[in-house]
Amino acid sequence: MEQIKKPQPNFIFQTEHWNVYLNPDQYYLGRSVVVAKRNVGSMSELKEDEWRDFAKLVKGFESAFKKAFGATMFNWTCLMNDAYKNNPPNPQVHWHFRPRYKNPVKFEGVKFEDKEFGNHYARGTNFEVPEKIFLKIIEKIKENLQR
Amino acid sequence: MEQIKKPQPNFIFQTEHWNVYLNPDQYYLGRSVVVAKRNVGSMSELKEDEWRDFAKLVKGFESAFKKAFGATMFNWTCLMNDAYKNNPPNPQVHWHFRPRYKNPVKFEGVKFEDKEFGNHYARGTNFEVPEKIFLKIIEKIKENLQR
Repeated sequence: MEQIKKPQPNFIFQTEHWNVYLNPDQYYLGRSVVVAKRNVGSMSELKEDEWRDFAKLVKGFESAFKKAFGATMFNWTCLMNDAYKNNPPNPQVHWHFRPRYKNPVKFEGVKFEDKEFGNHYARGTNFEVPEKIFLKIIEKIKENLQR
Repeated sequence: MEQIKKPQPNFIFQTEHWNVYLNPDQYYLGRSVVVAKRNVGSMSELKEDEWRDFAKLVKGFESAFKKAFGATMFNWTCLMNDAYKNNPPNPQVHWHFRPRYKNPVKFEGVKFEDKEFGNHYARGTNFEVPEKIFLKIIEKIKENLQR
């Protein structure tokens, strides 16, 4: 997951302990990745400060998505499977964030439709939007984040 | 998910703010569900105390699984999709916990094989073990939990 380490062009914002990036796949409008800044390989190793900061991030991020795009609810997953394809494995704690939408959303002329709403997220989705719109999604999220 | 509300027979343990149940599907040996005790519908609404307690739970639970079954790593997901099949939706914060295993594990004569290790968990698995073994899995986890 090379792209999640780059600060640009998919960087959205940071907190004290986490960086947040927009996922190149925008099948679920605003799909993002939240990555620990510290080199930490499992949820067990997260420190109290990092958890506290994460909890705050969740609250602000979910709220921003409700305001920005009318997201209905959210799927959060911490998996790290890919890192175990390597020997030795190189896990880095990160969360996949998928906003889920009861109704289709139109943003900047593009229709986003959560066809699996009420069910497990689809896998293997790869919905890339034009760069201009990708950057507008980031902008819209940032506008709605309370600092 | 009726079964996750019953304290028995799949109850494993509790902390101040969370109840932990063994999932009837044991395709991933020890697959469990961690349910908030309080009636709370989104991660955003979790209180600081609940997060702190959850972080501790994660640490103890992951450690117990390494000791009990030699689990390699863990997938944690907070989805709550099913609750949105209802109108009005009735979400209750809960985490699906899937221990993942690099190598097959034999427990009480049953072979558990994580064929997707290094990849996303399989969906639609439904590996039920005999009740006697199901209860032994719970026992084994409890033996390895540090209180």
